Amino acid sequence: MPEIFESATDEAPSQPSAEQMAAVPGDLPLGEILIRWTAQRSQFRHDNTILPAAPLPGEPVEVWATSGEEVPLERAALFYTVDGSRPERSSTVLPMERVRVSWDPHAGYLTHWLARIPGQPAGTRVRYRIAGWLAHPGSPASDEPEIWAQDGQGFAFHFSGERAFTTFAYLVEEEKQRRPPTWAREAIIYQIFLDRFRSDAPDGHFPPESEPHAMHGGTLNGVRAALPYLTELGVTCLWLSPLHLAESYHRYDALDYFRVDPRLGSNADLQALIEEAHARGMRVLLDFVPAHVSWHHPAFVAAQLDRQAPSHDWFYFERWPDRYGTFLDAVPGLPSLRSESEGARRHIIASALHWLGQFGIDGFRLDHAIGHSMDFWCEFRLATRALRPDVFLLGEVTDTPDALRRYRGRLDAVLDFPLAAALRSTFGVRTWDLRRFESFLSAYEAYMATGPARASFLDNHDMNRFLFITGNRPELLKLAALCQFTLAPAPIIYYGTEIGMSQRADISSKAVGGDAEARADMPWRPEDWNQDLLAFYRSLIRLRRALPVLTHGTRRVIHLDASQATYAYLRTHAAGQYLEHGDALVLFNLSELPQTVLLPASALPPAATTLLATSSAPVIRRSRHQVAITCEPLSGTIFACQEGG
Amino acid sequence: MPEIFESATDEAPSQPSAEQMAAVPGDLPLGEILIRWTAQRSQFRHDNTILPAAPLPGEPVEVWATSGEEVPLERAALFYTVDGSRPERSSTVLPMERVRVSWDPHAGYLTHWLARIPGQPAGTRVRYRIAGWLAHPGSPASDEPEIWAQDGQGFAFHFSGERAFTTFAYLVEEEKQRRPPTWAREAIIYQIFLDRFRSDAPDGHFPPESEPHAMHGGTLNGVRAALPYLTELGVTCLWLSPLHLAESYHRYDALDYFRVDPRLGSNADLQALIEEAHARGMRVLLDFVPAHVSWHHPAFVAAQLDRQAPSHDWFYFERWPDRYGTFLDAVPGLPSLRSESEGARRHIIASALHWLGQFGIDGFRLDHAIGHSMDFWCEFRLATRALRPDVFLLGEVTDTPDALRRYRGRLDAVLDFPLAAALRSTFGVRTWDLRRFESFLSAYEAYMATGPARASFLDNHDMNRFLFITGNRPELLKLAALCQFTLAPAPIIYYGTEIGMSQRADISSKAVGGDAEARADMPWRPEDWNQDLLAFYRSLIRLRRALPVLTHGTRRVIHLDASQATYAYLRTHAAGQYLEHGDALVLFNLSELPQTVLLPASALPPAATTLLATSSAPVIRRSRHQVAITCEPLSGTIFACQEGG
Repeated sequence: MPEIFESATDEAPSQPSAEQMAAVPGDLPLGEILIRWTAQRSQFRHDNTILPAAPLPGEPVEVWATSGEEVPLERAALFYTVDGSRPERSSTVLPMERVRVSWDPHAGYLTHWLARIPGQPAGTRVRYRIAGWLAHPGSPASDEPEIWAQDGQGFAFHFSGERAFTTFAYLVEEEKQRRPPTWAREAIIYQIFLDRFRSDAPDGHFPPESEPHAMHGGTLNGVRAALPYLTELGVTCLWLSPLHLAESYHRYDALDYFRVDPRLGSNADLQALIEEAHARGMRVLLDFVPAHVSWHHPAFVAAQLDRQAPSHDWFYFERWPDRYGTFLDAVPGLPSLRSESEGARRHIIASALHWLGQFGIDGFRLDHAIGHSMDFWCEFRLATRALRPDVFLLGEVTDTPDALRRYRGRLDAVLDFPLAAALRSTFGVRTWDLRRFESFLSAYEAYMATGPARASFLDNHDMNRFLFITGNRPELLKLAALCQFTLAPAPIIYYGTEIGMSQRADISSKAVGGDAEARADMPWRPEDWNQDLLAFYRSLIRLRRALPVLTHGTRRVIHLDASQATYAYLRTHAAGQYLEHGDALVLFNLSELPQTVLLPASALPPAATTLLATSSAPVIRRSRHQVAITCEPLSGTIFACQEGG
Repeated sequence: MPEIFESATDEAPSQPSAEQMAAVPGDLPLGEILIRWTAQRSQFRHDNTILPAAPLPGEPVEVWATSGEEVPLERAALFYTVDGSRPERSSTVLPMERVRVSWDPHAGYLTHWLARIPGQPAGTRVRYRIAGWLAHPGSPASDEPEIWAQDGQGFAFHFSGERAFTTFAYLVEEEKQRRPPTWAREAIIYQIFLDRFRSDAPDGHFPPESEPHAMHGGTLNGVRAALPYLTELGVTCLWLSPLHLAESYHRYDALDYFRVDPRLGSNADLQALIEEAHARGMRVLLDFVPAHVSWHHPAFVAAQLDRQAPSHDWFYFERWPDRYGTFLDAVPGLPSLRSESEGARRHIIASALHWLGQFGIDGFRLDHAIGHSMDFWCEFRLATRALRPDVFLLGEVTDTPDALRRYRGRLDAVLDFPLAAALRSTFGVRTWDLRRFESFLSAYEAYMATGPARASFLDNHDMNRFLFITGNRPELLKLAALCQFTLAPAPIIYYGTEIGMSQRADISSKAVGGDAEARADMPWRPEDWNQDLLAFYRSLIRLRRALPVLTHGTRRVIHLDASQATYAYLRTHAAGQYLEHGDALVLFNLSELPQTVLLPASALPPAATTLLATSSAPVIRRSRHQVAITCEPLSGTIFACQEGG
């Protein structure tokens, strides 16, 4: 998500305010959530809830909708197509059944509607719309639907009329197609903010003391020059921030979806970067920004000049030419693209295919994915997969967990904001104790078991750097990274985290650099690096690549003592309590004192060794049934059974 | 619910405050509700949700429980008995299945647990408890349950430890046993506040200018003397406020559950009253107060004096002798009775059987029913039904609609607080328009279709009188009563409403009489009565008794125009759109202007006549397909087809 434009118009930003939104990535504001729940009273709503969430070929699909007490309906019906066309009144129609009424303190009385769409063959994109007829006693009976069920998902609830999504979709796929490509599940991703990562200078340095919101001059060739560094670090996938021609240094405000920003380099430079990355066994993800453009994008300029312009229907003009839907309804400089505009959709998808086909990009990090409908994403997925069967689609979904979960079968994976918030609360600002962390984690993992895959992170370009929020204590960053890298989601490292990059001030203190504080220039002099931290990160990455159980195994907590702040879990292939060949045991001491942890002897057999420790290795004493592990203050350790042990 | 004691101790009342609670009967405070929802995070909870809600003989029953993310469980099990004994570890055990995890903005991640109890024969009382074993990594494994699922119902969530209910129950009954007795479903109930209804004086008058909180001297003989008046009014059931020996004028603070308060009269007086009422075709309900006693009740006095007293276990002593659970945790003068105390339970049930068996009482209005567990109510229901198969149990459940609904199969009916709030908002203070009213009503009726029966009211002794909140406009009271009497729930009239009793001040203005303002002395001089209102009420009652469709039929809205404030619904035997023999059409004009309503001709055939109008009858003009009905300002009308028409 880009920052709020400096050059905002006089128009006051509408709700939610920039301040409110700043809190979103890590921790959704409860007020927002509750307003959304309350809005259900007056909505006919379909939140893309279908059962099963990811239908197999031939499986019938239940589609559920709700009508609030303020929109009493006489009846409802679902229209659907299986040929890719937009569902209309002439499409196949299914009456919806009024199943039950529920009650909730915010939503009030909700009537639940159900239709069952028959099973379809693999590869089908089922598109549907849901119509309702209001109970309007006294008004002349009409057969025209009076209301269309809207997507109640995400911040979309703020939007009314045109801005609410009313066309829905799901894909019918074989089970194996559902899973993200193996390379993506096993990836270790490195997030590069192009303008700030590495300049064209031979040493990669940036000029000192640049204005925080100006272009600093990072380039694609700079990234290419950093590939040996990244190879040695061990990452297997690069996420490049937007590289199309754009207005600002962050480039989340596209001016041309088909052109590499010449300030970053040429087409050939991009080609060379991708080829060399591939040659080094690294994949490349592009940060793709499909939900909005710069207000200087030619399509928007044309639409504002002429109501008859073909691109007029790409945007949500509430009052042409000056009132239109924007990113978060708060940034006039970023007009939103209409999810249901055929023209906009064709343009965006063609652009994605351009980068995939022309340059061999391996996938996309999809900015502000809730800005488009699930119908949009199903089409996007089908189109990109047709060109590249192992393309990886990773969504930025800043929303509640229930919304995240609904991306299963629509995108491959989502950025794991809830886990990031938990890691930051536990290891960063330390407002959560280990019991709270584990309680969250076990419940959340069970909840997301029926959701899409996830990619984990400690920080990103929209939030304070992790090291900064610890009060610049690398030992806490190490503990957080140890946890991140020993959980199932594919870990992402935000550039510079591994060498100890921090900030001068909180991103909310606008007086300094604002969110640019978290986007400082990468230093390339090794003497500016925290070498101990870097060595730790290299070991951690090597270890994760060597131990597939960390990606694919099950997790089981075998020790938790919140009062002494110690915690241990197993990552195992089998569901057992014991450490076997290829399994790992992860142990944390989050207290500022040394602590001794007693485990059953089977949890740490003599064949197990310390693979990695954040500080010096713990002292182990064994008795017949127990093993006593004495850990340094603020330390973490990974144990594993030796090969063949 | 009694008022807060004047003679409160120095101890500051705990939350919720009296102010908060005053708002409860009509309109539950959202803050309270949300705190309760949020509490689920740290609870292992069973809210008495079973499927089916009212199991038939032989039907297996699903029992659902939830554990919040702050109480991660390793496993759970259900223990049950079918012989009436309390479930223990030695009872039949069913492992509970961990079915899924849900997420909610307040409750967080909830794990849902399920057990299926096999079908049982008719008449079985199934009692059960639900045990959980915490996921305590590192602690020694034990087979003793570490946590018992608690009733999350009602305000009970405030209570911890002993005060939370952990024994649950349901009854297995034939479908016909589920329904309240026919007399109760068809009843027209008159609520009498004994101390204020009629004195022993020949003319029934009270001495003028009594202190609002003093005894005013109403008696049972006074009620008997009023029976001709009540017969002429047409009511079929009396609800007498508590008549056992008690401390205050309202008598919701029992001193002896087995003794008629001698200030009200003798046993013989009660006997005579009930006999004469029965002879006149009226049933009699006692207001029964099983959840708490006066702190001067001998059982509590003994328990406070001696820890070894048999009645010590009747109460919730958090710290003997001075800290104990009380009504709403805010009234030291009203110690709560322990739902799970065998002694207290036997005493209360024996008292109910005493009034039923000794005096021929027909049923009970059960004060503060959420003060006891569903297990208590199942036993109460079985015991009272064994003595009187057609006993009627009507609960005062001041709680959210989901909690009300769970009384199905446990009590016969509940006082309809949600409907009262809607009627008061629409016809009383007029903050709801007709669209909002109808939206609520249709959703609520559908929701409560799977709940217990309901008894409707406009006001009671705990809230401002309806006429007072209209600004003393009898035409609005008439409209509300017209609506109340043409909906399915059995209507209740609070004494004096029918003659136009109002108040001097709001009950929240403590400076005047507080809630005693709504409990003024009934005037017995006909010149003090609103004779027009009284005549209307007599007609309304006669009409409801003559038209069973108002009690048993379906409801269908055929006109709603919120802008001109007109509204019409049919009550019909068939589900049709047409007025047939025995059906009724109810029409409202809530605007201050005359309004004309157009209906299809079939809705009001020529054979239909005006049965009752709140003011002068409307003017009807017919065309071939339509009928135009012109109504007076603020008027309502009931039309019905003539016998044989």
